[in-house]
Amino acid sequence: MSTLNDIPLPPALDRSLEAELRRVIDMKTKPRGSLGRLEALALQAGLIQRTTKPRIVRPAMIVFAADHGIAAEGVSSYPQEVTAQMVANFLAGGAAINALSRSVGMTLEIVDAGVATPIPAVQAGPDVGYERESLGPGTRNFAREPAMSRATALDAIARGAACVRRHAALGTNVIGFGEMGIANTSAAACLMSRLCGVPIDDCVGRGTGLDDRGLAHKREVLGRALALHADTGDAVDTLATFGGFEIAMMTGACLEAARAGMTILVDGFIATSALLVAATLAPAVLDYCVFAHASDETGHRRMLAHLGAAPLLQLDLRLGEGTGAALALPVLRAAVAFLDEMASFESAGVSDQAG
Amino acid sequence: MSTLNDIPLPPALDRSLEAELRRVIDMKTKPRGSLGRLEALALQAGLIQRTTKPRIVRPAMIVFAADHGIAAEGVSSYPQEVTAQMVANFLAGGAAINALSRSVGMTLEIVDAGVATPIPAVQAGPDVGYERESLGPGTRNFAREPAMSRATALDAIARGAACVRRHAALGTNVIGFGEMGIANTSAAACLMSRLCGVPIDDCVGRGTGLDDRGLAHKREVLGRALALHADTGDAVDTLATFGGFEIAMMTGACLEAARAGMTILVDGFIATSALLVAATLAPAVLDYCVFAHASDETGHRRMLAHLGAAPLLQLDLRLGEGTGAALALPVLRAAVAFLDEMASFESAGVSDQAG
Repeated sequence: MSTLNDIPLPPALDRSLEAELRRVIDMKTKPRGSLGRLEALALQAGLIQRTTKPRIVRPAMIVFAADHGIAAEGVSSYPQEVTAQMVANFLAGGAAINALSRSVGMTLEIVDAGVATPIPAVQAGPDVGYERESLGPGTRNFAREPAMSRATALDAIARGAACVRRHAALGTNVIGFGEMGIANTSAAACLMSRLCGVPIDDCVGRGTGLDDRGLAHKREVLGRALALHADTGDAVDTLATFGGFEIAMMTGACLEAARAGMTILVDGFIATSALLVAATLAPAVLDYCVFAHASDETGHRRMLAHLGAAPLLQLDLRLGEGTGAALALPVLRAAVAFLDEMASFESAGVSDQAG
Repeated sequence: MSTLNDIPLPPALDRSLEAELRRVIDMKTKPRGSLGRLEALALQAGLIQRTTKPRIVRPAMIVFAADHGIAAEGVSSYPQEVTAQMVANFLAGGAAINALSRSVGMTLEIVDAGVATPIPAVQAGPDVGYERESLGPGTRNFAREPAMSRATALDAIARGAACVRRHAALGTNVIGFGEMGIANTSAAACLMSRLCGVPIDDCVGRGTGLDDRGLAHKREVLGRALALHADTGDAVDTLATFGGFEIAMMTGACLEAARAGMTILVDGFIATSALLVAATLAPAVLDYCVFAHASDETGHRRMLAHLGAAPLLQLDLRLGEGTGAALALPVLRAAVAFLDEMASFESAGVSDQAG
């Protein structure tokens, strides 16, 4: 793939079943609207799957891992080796996303999108998939030069899409994307600042634990980087300039998941920054998204507001890995369950509202 | 049971494992605090079960159903028969709480605490328990006289406790309580007004769908009722005056669940009003509670604030039946899973935060 025109984009959501779905939901044995956001989720799932009986099939979580050249500027409180160490931890089954995806019943796959240091050997857990799609030993340092070339960004988008197609072939119709990459809040903050037109200071947070001095340094570094790359062009160029391999692959994964008619569970700050790029290329992708949670990372709420998104959960998470997305699955499952299993007023012999 | 002294009350939560639990949580391979409210839930579950390896065993939902004499005042938009019809719907498996408890993996039991009209015959679903603990054909109309006697309120508390003991004997260590009862938001609003010292207008909402005129009428009726019973005594007398059989049984159920060392998933406005009575009798009960969600019913947020509770979910639900409580179970399950299954920095060979 070498041009933007080669990226297959999702179609607008087909809303032809909307009235029928609303009628079915309103006839369930409950006061109208009383299941709140579950009703909106049931409607969305029905529209995406084009049926009044949507199902959740083989829900999957893909965690993309990659390193970032910007880490050399000291913008993270963890050393770069932690990316590779955490990939090993994912493969051994010991990370938060392992516990959470197991807990909610999601298939888990780890994708090496471009980790910089050797991944320590581990006994892989039987229930964790692993794919090597490395685009190199981390990106370049965007405080000095673009993180990657436009061609590499397009390649990453294509690879992310291919990952989703593998799961589509296995039947998956609900998918979440997580990430691991030391310093990737810096990449996401710059993408947000440029694509949303928000001052960088409002996009930069403590990541996984910076103190006040670290935060001030991160702001200064990223402010300089944005000034250095004042003239990024379209969304793909912006992605190439500031993004990471894992972010670019998630952008492609989002576009393909929507195109395949999947419901996308959108995780936190980094995953949403990838979606932001995808939505800039194809706004229709947003119709396929469930915004799983509002991360505790500064900037995420504002990014969600820019996308017109109301997050489902607010649990003060700031971990990434897809942990927030995983926690939204049981809520979606409950929404699909009530739509499928509840009786109607008529069939149950229950009196509807007086008057 | 005839006196308040016969009610077994829960002990204060044993916090002796707190430091050890915090250490275990902090050593997991994630930035400290990055799992947000899941970390607090894991700590709470560990304290309640007195172990660093808490488990969720046979989670159960008990839905208490009863009628309210106050319904005669036209404070609900549904006819009283709907209580019995919905009990039949629960037993047939067609209500929201059936779909949701199945979806999250909770055992479901329906208790007739005092339904006024005959429950239509249904083919009971194989996965729904049913217990008859009726205290009569609904309460009396508290716009004219106390809803029940003090002796009946104490009897209801004892019966609610007995329901929980049956589940404790089967191993249940996480429990939620739901309710069904036409007009029971009126009972809950009066309990809240009296026990929290909040003006009735701030406690009264639209229930399951009142219009503006209906809302004004409900406020007027309940304001008069509170004035009529200006001198209710202790919490049990207040419960007897305004409460319902299902609310009183939930009060006893909360006290016993805490006493049995269960984690209690607290549902919406009505369930929280029952807990409010329980917490007035024994504040220690609150340490065993997970406040599942903030209901869309006016007054619930303020009731939660009075209890010092931060609701876990905000999904605009206003249905009752235990639906909000059920949706909190997967979050608790995820919290217990990360505590149990995640590796530590040391065991996984992951570098902890620099500095």
